[in-house]
Amino acid sequence: MEKHKPTILLTNDDGITAPGLHALINAVKNMGNIVVVAPDSPQSGMGHAITMSSPLRLNKVNIGEDIEAWQCSGTPADCVKIAKDVVLKATPDICLSGINHGANHSVNIIYSGTMSAAMEAAMEGIPSIGFSLTDYRFDANFDLAAKVVKSIVEKFLTLNHTGTTLLNVNIPNVPEQAFKGMKICRQAKAKWQENYDKRIDPQGKEYYWMRGTFILQDDGNDTDSQALKDGYASIVPVTIDFTNYALQTKLAEEWGNVITFHVTNT
Amino acid sequence: MEKHKPTILLTNDDGITAPGLHALINAVKNMGNIVVVAPDSPQSGMGHAITMSSPLRLNKVNIGEDIEAWQCSGTPADCVKIAKDVVLKATPDICLSGINHGANHSVNIIYSGTMSAAMEAAMEGIPSIGFSLTDYRFDANFDLAAKVVKSIVEKFLTLNHTGTTLLNVNIPNVPEQAFKGMKICRQAKAKWQENYDKRIDPQGKEYYWMRGTFILQDDGNDTDSQALKDGYASIVPVTIDFTNYALQTKLAEEWGNVITFHVTNT
Repeated sequence: MEKHKPTILLTNDDGITAPGLHALINAVKNMGNIVVVAPDSPQSGMGHAITMSSPLRLNKVNIGEDIEAWQCSGTPADCVKIAKDVVLKATPDICLSGINHGANHSVNIIYSGTMSAAMEAAMEGIPSIGFSLTDYRFDANFDLAAKVVKSIVEKFLTLNHTGTTLLNVNIPNVPEQAFKGMKICRQAKAKWQENYDKRIDPQGKEYYWMRGTFILQDDGNDTDSQALKDGYASIVPVTIDFTNYALQTKLAEEWGNVITFHVTNT
Repeated sequence: MEKHKPTILLTNDDGITAPGLHALINAVKNMGNIVVVAPDSPQSGMGHAITMSSPLRLNKVNIGEDIEAWQCSGTPADCVKIAKDVVLKATPDICLSGINHGANHSVNIIYSGTMSAAMEAAMEGIPSIGFSLTDYRFDANFDLAAKVVKSIVEKFLTLNHTGTTLLNVNIPNVPEQAFKGMKICRQAKAKWQENYDKRIDPQGKEYYWMRGTFILQDDGNDTDSQALKDGYASIVPVTIDFTNYALQTKLAEEWGNVITFHVTNT
């Protein structure tokens, strides 16, 4: 009897024609039934945006691979939602997003379209992984990243875990000889220091380009940012429960569990 | 000697002309130096999107209140970034976002433009709160919500907490007589069940409207969704560290902290 072939939903945020998506397809195409539902144009920095005030287009397309593929006019999160309800009419076994052209370690997860697709799937109870290569170029070399994908997805398919099963994987842009392996990490504490570039348009009016510097505020050896610097691929398990339990305890102590106020007609 | 007046940055995701923003302004205008930097148009469902591939416009505006106000062509997260770097040229003491026309409890935080602004500020180390009223209408009654805002911001300004200080506050749409108070909660486990509405355009082509049902998957008495049902305003302390520490421990046990693979020329 043939083993059950898992249904694997693939998406990304660089759009359906991005080389990173094709690298992902080729890395996993022998592991299950592959269905691609990806944005029709780049969606970097879209965070967890969803499309509510306009309708979506969804079209079956030929992307030069022998697999079922659809392009959608929405965001990465939209792609996962419409894939489940309209394309698959079922829940896939796993969802993989990427391989992103560019890094999504540390707080970049918050801005990441790649991870928003994986998070959306995780909210639906689907085990999911977002993959990112720390090289934003169109012609980035995905050879090492594809091997990391293969290795992690093989392990992931046999993982027995109830509850949210969601990973943020970043792969360093290093030669294979310098690659150290894959490391289980926590999200590094960091921030972006913005420095807007003010310009004047031909009508004499001001406009601004966002520009920023990534500031690592964490000297831990167990963070994703550090692992990447050290030549590892970082694997951060991710939660979709954003409750800050430590602050919850503190507030309950300081303010009480329930706060009442006198309703006055001010 | 006069007490230091805190600088309070206000923003929202319904846009600078939304009644909910004006309710927020009026609730806190005596508590500090108020500066508003808000989107020039509604941004609901934008999640933590940021604008990278187009420039931003930023203009000082008169919104009929006696305070400094700017409108920005970007997302709520963009507003916070540009407020800090271009408008204030400094870090505000606190950032308040809202009052949103519509609920942002449970997993809705992930899609919420209101909370993305507060999260962006929290990433910058600014104590922040997002406020949402569970009534999406333009002419929603913000009277009770404004009292909740006032009460919480007064407590918040004197809170002594190092590390991320970020709250997601939702206010129920109930008459004041039925209001029970404010409750410290955790984020409820829930999901959206999508059910896309397929339509045909005048050219005979298909398009889809997103439609969904909120499914609460949590019967805890300590969740935000339950608190709102019971007539409380919910206060959920929120983290920006998305690491799933329980899964991190499990993976480190099952896979090892570092995973190596043989680099072969496949």
